[in-house]
Amino acid sequence: MKFTAMLTKRYKDTPADCQIASHIFMIRGGYMKNVGNGIYSLFPITKRITSKIESIMREEMDRIDGQEVLFPVVMPAGIWRESGRYDSIANELVRFKDRSGNDMVLGMTHEEAAVQLARETADSYQQFPFMIYQIQTKFRDEPRARGGLIRVREFTMKDAYSFHTSKEDLERYYAICHKAYERIFARCGVPEVISVKSDSGMMGGKVAHEFMLCTPVGEDSLVVCKDCDFRANMETAECVYENLNTGEGELKKVATPEMKTIEDVCAYLNSDTKYSIKAVVYQQETDDAYVVAFIRGDLEINEVKLRNYLKSEIYPAQELEKAGLTAGFIGPKGISKDIKVVYDVSLKTCDNYVCGANEANCHYTGLSIRRDIGDVEYVDIGKAIEGGICPICGKKTLSLTRGIEVGNIFQLGDKYTASMGMKYIDKDGTLKTPIMGCYGIGVGRLAASVCEAHHDEYGPIWPMTIAPWQVQLCALRSDNESVKALADDLYERLQAAGIEVLYDDRQISAGVMFSDADLTGIPLRVVVSPKGIANGTVEISKRDKSYMEKIETDKAFDSIKQLVKSMLDEINNI
Amino acid sequence: MKFTAMLTKRYKDTPADCQIASHIFMIRGGYMKNVGNGIYSLFPITKRITSKIESIMREEMDRIDGQEVLFPVVMPAGIWRESGRYDSIANELVRFKDRSGNDMVLGMTHEEAAVQLARETADSYQQFPFMIYQIQTKFRDEPRARGGLIRVREFTMKDAYSFHTSKEDLERYYAICHKAYERIFARCGVPEVISVKSDSGMMGGKVAHEFMLCTPVGEDSLVVCKDCDFRANMETAECVYENLNTGEGELKKVATPEMKTIEDVCAYLNSDTKYSIKAVVYQQETDDAYVVAFIRGDLEINEVKLRNYLKSEIYPAQELEKAGLTAGFIGPKGISKDIKVVYDVSLKTCDNYVCGANEANCHYTGLSIRRDIGDVEYVDIGKAIEGGICPICGKKTLSLTRGIEVGNIFQLGDKYTASMGMKYIDKDGTLKTPIMGCYGIGVGRLAASVCEAHHDEYGPIWPMTIAPWQVQLCALRSDNESVKALADDLYERLQAAGIEVLYDDRQISAGVMFSDADLTGIPLRVVVSPKGIANGTVEISKRDKSYMEKIETDKAFDSIKQLVKSMLDEINNI
Repeated sequence: MKFTAMLTKRYKDTPADCQIASHIFMIRGGYMKNVGNGIYSLFPITKRITSKIESIMREEMDRIDGQEVLFPVVMPAGIWRESGRYDSIANELVRFKDRSGNDMVLGMTHEEAAVQLARETADSYQQFPFMIYQIQTKFRDEPRARGGLIRVREFTMKDAYSFHTSKEDLERYYAICHKAYERIFARCGVPEVISVKSDSGMMGGKVAHEFMLCTPVGEDSLVVCKDCDFRANMETAECVYENLNTGEGELKKVATPEMKTIEDVCAYLNSDTKYSIKAVVYQQETDDAYVVAFIRGDLEINEVKLRNYLKSEIYPAQELEKAGLTAGFIGPKGISKDIKVVYDVSLKTCDNYVCGANEANCHYTGLSIRRDIGDVEYVDIGKAIEGGICPICGKKTLSLTRGIEVGNIFQLGDKYTASMGMKYIDKDGTLKTPIMGCYGIGVGRLAASVCEAHHDEYGPIWPMTIAPWQVQLCALRSDNESVKALADDLYERLQAAGIEVLYDDRQISAGVMFSDADLTGIPLRVVVSPKGIANGTVEISKRDKSYMEKIETDKAFDSIKQLVKSMLDEINNI
Repeated sequence: MKFTAMLTKRYKDTPADCQIASHIFMIRGGYMKNVGNGIYSLFPITKRITSKIESIMREEMDRIDGQEVLFPVVMPAGIWRESGRYDSIANELVRFKDRSGNDMVLGMTHEEAAVQLARETADSYQQFPFMIYQIQTKFRDEPRARGGLIRVREFTMKDAYSFHTSKEDLERYYAICHKAYERIFARCGVPEVISVKSDSGMMGGKVAHEFMLCTPVGEDSLVVCKDCDFRANMETAECVYENLNTGEGELKKVATPEMKTIEDVCAYLNSDTKYSIKAVVYQQETDDAYVVAFIRGDLEINEVKLRNYLKSEIYPAQELEKAGLTAGFIGPKGISKDIKVVYDVSLKTCDNYVCGANEANCHYTGLSIRRDIGDVEYVDIGKAIEGGICPICGKKTLSLTRGIEVGNIFQLGDKYTASMGMKYIDKDGTLKTPIMGCYGIGVGRLAASVCEAHHDEYGPIWPMTIAPWQVQLCALRSDNESVKALADDLYERLQAAGIEVLYDDRQISAGVMFSDADLTGIPLRVVVSPKGIANGTVEISKRDKSYMEKIETDKAFDSIKQLVKSMLDEINNI
């Protein structure tokens, strides 16, 4: 395509609301147009990228025996009522009435539609397992759309649903799909994407993984072992602690006037916070009951773990006095029996704690939970820390990082099949409920994430496999007859050879042409110029600056072809 | 793919609400699942068909320099308010509020989004013309979804929008797009689709064509000349009439007691209805004013034409007496001057009419409009008739038929660009408003229409270019080792050769296998059977029954390959 024919416009300035690289470059480079909050139209350059990503997804889904289907964007509320999600999901789910007054929803995910399609069709064990997938528009009325294509309300998603007659078969296929996801990310040029265990949230089910592209601008906190392959989302990362081997001390009540934080108290007592017990008070959403979470003073409560343990949403407690709690001086010893108490596993590591005495201006020193409180249940409700102990290899090699979630996979179990009454006849003639896995990747978010991973200060550096075009042909001084003749000839021969070329023959300065090319991010650049022609060469360079050569004019075509092939192979052969 | 692995189920009985072939076979053959009124999920077999149709569309759109984009399904009301359609379209347009209370719509078409994308980008005459297109989900809250995929509420559409700086350039490109549409339909196996001039309806603009597949089950009435290439939608088909050359008669008032229809009156007077004037009374929606439409007694009023002439919606008149009209006896002579009167062009053909006398139980005979009424404006408001005169070739060769609209193209003019303030700087430095064309094809409706055009009593006969698979391989008695070995070998070799094979190796009766194959509609069938093996042959046949041969086993692979190729070429080389 000629650059002049491409519908796009580039901007010099960065819009005020753009904070991350992909958002900045995709707005400045004319990749997309904001239509409404979290809603974009995609220009041709982006559609070319997303179409290539979709093709890779299709190939990898077909390779693991996926069958492509299409579910509707608009669904009647009925099937969402069957699964219970019509009522359980808040206003991320768009609900409206059609012209006849029927309740309708916009699909934000398609488990219900998948079960509805499968339950009438797959009624014998012989038809299992199978996987169906679609690439389709979804709408989630996100409260905080942000970061361009990273967090939007409307998006194209590849979502897949597998159906199985046993947990073992689901686990077998889940592993296969995990590998397919690794191939998808590698083929899209981000082999560095890692998978981490995650909380399955509103999707239900137990085992789930998120695929994360590690980047400081990511929304998710990750815990990664530097030494082994342990990786987890902060929300669910298991914590283990080394024993502090303090031995017991003598229990004493000490005056700690006006010291309301455990840090103040420990400083006053000249003690490290890790030899103290911190109390954090919540209330449960289900019944407003107070819950005191005790954790070692140097650690923080992980509210996702606590919520999962309590099986209730929680919120910061109000009016502690009403519950008989003395704010700032709460401790395990002498706390009202009516209050629910949770001990973090970190409290097993020491036998000699500083802690609140449940009385204003007083703390204990020398508290041993075992001796002074008795047998308690220890629960893992803490946040993993930098340099913490890896629960797999046991070394102090945990590292905290941030990531963008570019995909996720879930072992759903029977959450949807049971609630929606899907049954099959098993070998023995009995009716059974199949179990499901589901597997999603957002197309636009993946494109933006690739840009986050691969850019420099001037623009994106698209991997050859998903680049909008493979070669950017720049004719400097296309008013020069020799330049135009050579560039035109290369353009035609490369296209005839099946190579995608964006041909810039505008009569503009080299500076503007190259900065436009930087924003377009095409991985291979070919420059035809009067100076090059005088020397009998064209200049070929990679957008990532790892390569630049002046190639003899008559070898240029073969060199370009070879470079495109090797750059494709380099990614695909990972 | 193996038949057993395909997610689908076939049904013996035709559901009660299925009336047309495509609906019947696509439900019975497990092509789709009804999710709600006019909303379907597509099974893998259908997605394979629609994906092929989409690929053909993409190729043809790219070939005429189209650039693929993606507009959102959900749009803020703002841009629809700019064009005026937020208020002018009734409840086919789904409106809802998002979580922040903003008015949103579901895209039922994307002119607004196209102008919004283009208006910031294309601001110089040098950037024109260009065409952008997408293949995307649309939702129209149709009052009468029916006929399976023929008339739905949610559908996938290929919609394209071209932008031009002159009417001549729009007309030039419109003709190019018309040809691309002909290629799309031909490549999808329905070269018989015709284009007819149409009323542009809510799309605005003046010149428009509908692409129609002629079939008795179509919703649209068409007027087609048997002798030349005149084709029009009944809604807009121009009518011409031959002069009846009656000469003038003497104006007489005659008693016609209790005769309320023009047919009764003419029978009583022993006159042909074509020598009479029929009156049909409407009221305008804009102001409820009464309108009397006069037309020759043998013809019918075309309400679309009348509405367009009046520039108002119309409805059958109520309470004629209130307006001073004598129901059953209304005629041109003596009618109240306060009533709006419209004369059809058919009334120019005779000078000696029977007509109402605007007085109970009385008609005139011998009325001459020229002599007795004076100069009147004649307007074309009649319906074309079978055997009527072709407005192009002048012969009495008009034929009425029915058709399914499978695509449409519109010269929109500046309706959207002007209302939405799109401007470009012309050569002379002045700001001008570009003009647009738009071009749509519904993917699912086209698939169903192909089935309407190509089926027999047993199922669809998919054209090779869009068939879900190219070859159906039936292994009769796959428990027979020789059968299985030969069928397996063919399956693998054909797939390796890039041929799409659906392989049925179920151990079922030949009858069930063949009737399933009929419903699957794959154009080429290969049967491996014990009997064939004994004779050293496999049986190859076309689904449309035009070919059946027993081919020597060792020549089967080459024959199949050759047949697939020739069946593809047959369609593509039209």
